[in-house]
Amino acid sequence: MTTGCVIGVDLGGTKLLAGAVDGDLIVRHRAHRTVGGLEQAALLDTVVDAVREAILAAAPDAPVLGVGFGIPSLVDRATGTSLHSVHLPLEDVPFRDLMAERLDVPVFVDNDATAAILAEWRFGAARGAADAVLLTLGTGIGGGLVVGGRIVRGARGMAAELGHVPVERDGPACGPGCPARGCLEAVASGTALAREALAAARGHPRSGLGRALAGGLEITGALCVELAHDGDAAARAVVAEVGRRLGVGIAGLANVFDPEIVVVGGGVMAAGELLLGPAREVAAARALPPLGSLVRVEPARFGAESGMVGAAALALEGLGRLPAGEPAELGGGG
Amino acid sequence: MTTGCVIGVDLGGTKLLAGAVDGDLIVRHRAHRTVGGLEQAALLDTVVDAVREAILAAAPDAPVLGVGFGIPSLVDRATGTSLHSVHLPLEDVPFRDLMAERLDVPVFVDNDATAAILAEWRFGAARGAADAVLLTLGTGIGGGLVVGGRIVRGARGMAAELGHVPVERDGPACGPGCPARGCLEAVASGTALAREALAAARGHPRSGLGRALAGGLEITGALCVELAHDGDAAARAVVAEVGRRLGVGIAGLANVFDPEIVVVGGGVMAAGELLLGPAREVAAARALPPLGSLVRVEPARFGAESGMVGAAALALEGLGRLPAGEPAELGGGG
Repeated sequence: MTTGCVIGVDLGGTKLLAGAVDGDLIVRHRAHRTVGGLEQAALLDTVVDAVREAILAAAPDAPVLGVGFGIPSLVDRATGTSLHSVHLPLEDVPFRDLMAERLDVPVFVDNDATAAILAEWRFGAARGAADAVLLTLGTGIGGGLVVGGRIVRGARGMAAELGHVPVERDGPACGPGCPARGCLEAVASGTALAREALAAARGHPRSGLGRALAGGLEITGALCVELAHDGDAAARAVVAEVGRRLGVGIAGLANVFDPEIVVVGGGVMAAGELLLGPAREVAAARALPPLGSLVRVEPARFGAESGMVGAAALALEGLGRLPAGEPAELGGGG
Repeated sequence: MTTGCVIGVDLGGTKLLAGAVDGDLIVRHRAHRTVGGLEQAALLDTVVDAVREAILAAAPDAPVLGVGFGIPSLVDRATGTSLHSVHLPLEDVPFRDLMAERLDVPVFVDNDATAAILAEWRFGAARGAADAVLLTLGTGIGGGLVVGGRIVRGARGMAAELGHVPVERDGPACGPGCPARGCLEAVASGTALAREALAAARGHPRSGLGRALAGGLEITGALCVELAHDGDAAARAVVAEVGRRLGVGIAGLANVFDPEIVVVGGGVMAAGELLLGPAREVAAARALPPLGSLVRVEPARFGAESGMVGAAALALEGLGRLPAGEPAELGGGG
């Protein structure tokens, strides 16, 4: 496909990324928006506006043939309706039809985590694997599953909530929409990283983290990762500890799925090996032998953009420009 | 099938059960053996001996057409070889061919947990479900998975080790062969039940458990369950606490798989609702809404015999007496 492109939209609970993506999965343009806290009408307007920006940016090079959305919702795939969402006001919204009407191009909709695993499985780090697990570490932790060569959706489309496996029975309370404590999300997400970083900043006032706090900076997960890369020992210790907690969860998922690969993506993976090294070590030590030494734990190929690229792949597939069902060659079928 | 039967063999780490099973899945005879601690030659002799006993017992009514084995091993299904076993000396043993030679009937071999999920999925509590989870609570905790209408085996046949999901990061050390701590098996198996019952017996000398200990009885999981049924408050509290820990694990599995049903079997399920009630309550409270109220948690239809019945079903299927692949009518296809 050299003569057209698609827009992939990763609609998260707080942010939106719309990318103009060509048939080789090269991202030509990106449009960003903040969507946290918007009411439904404003949210839908913001989505349309971002997609139009991406379409306009792409237009000089290539016509836009369709738009794919990954949305943080339980999705009725037959109708493209958002049945339920913990993060956004998208209860019983005929998302696909609304967007198709306002954008006037073919629209394809699926769950955001499903879009992310689609990208990594068909074109990314898990390419060719019949059994693969994806964890996306952001504000929360999203999950994607491929079992026996098929994406797992569950009896009601609610499967693969891998952020909500228990790892510490009496651990911290989990995020919005989850009634449990000590879920993987509660101890190894970006939110958990920020919480631990703030505690470290208070406990180690002479560390980089401590000086940042004293200087009035907001202690975010991203700042902690940055300081860790700069060599701050306190920040490195926080990132490594979150990595070890992630490793406990990965060991359990390895025992459940015996996957060829566990792919870790999302914004927190900016930490790279500072996070993934300790995670890998704990996963190898805690998984049942010989699984511990067999399961690969690798960063997502598309980093924090797996969801957007996967949404684009949804559109390419829906337009018949990718072979459906099985992992395909990169950019194949166009 | 009214004119023949099969032998189903559930070979566990400590005990063996061989049942003569007819085409309606009625168990006509049972042979029991203890196999814990045996060396390989003695183990294989014991297995053959038990199967012969079951064959002889069945013979007056019906000829034995084949034997199915569920073994606690990583199994190469193409050759019926036991590649590896944590619990028995069955490393690289051509189990199927050895048994076929000594028993002189067709032999079918698969993993024991796979046999158990086969029984419950095709004929038992999970019949008709496209997505189902099985937990068998015995000395350890075994698991079985059906996802999208297919039994999950993993990339190397090692999937569905559901006893080895972490639930308490710093919990008790797990059992033999597992390097982790705080696995579901470490807190909700029969072994965990016995450990907690012993602690309760020591802490409450005037309880039924305490008096049993003072009287020189060994405090086993089975004894604790018996005392709980008799109304001993200390025993009931132990069973309920183990049930709540089980519920934490079930909540996580519900979030991962979105199954129609979670089936709980194995010897510990002699406790029935004394265990399953608290488990159900915690699972409902901790799973992501609305999963908590949607996922059914039910006892196994075949109780502690799911593995044996499933091994028989393996043989029936292998002999072409059951339709392969999809859940079938009870005893159908014969």
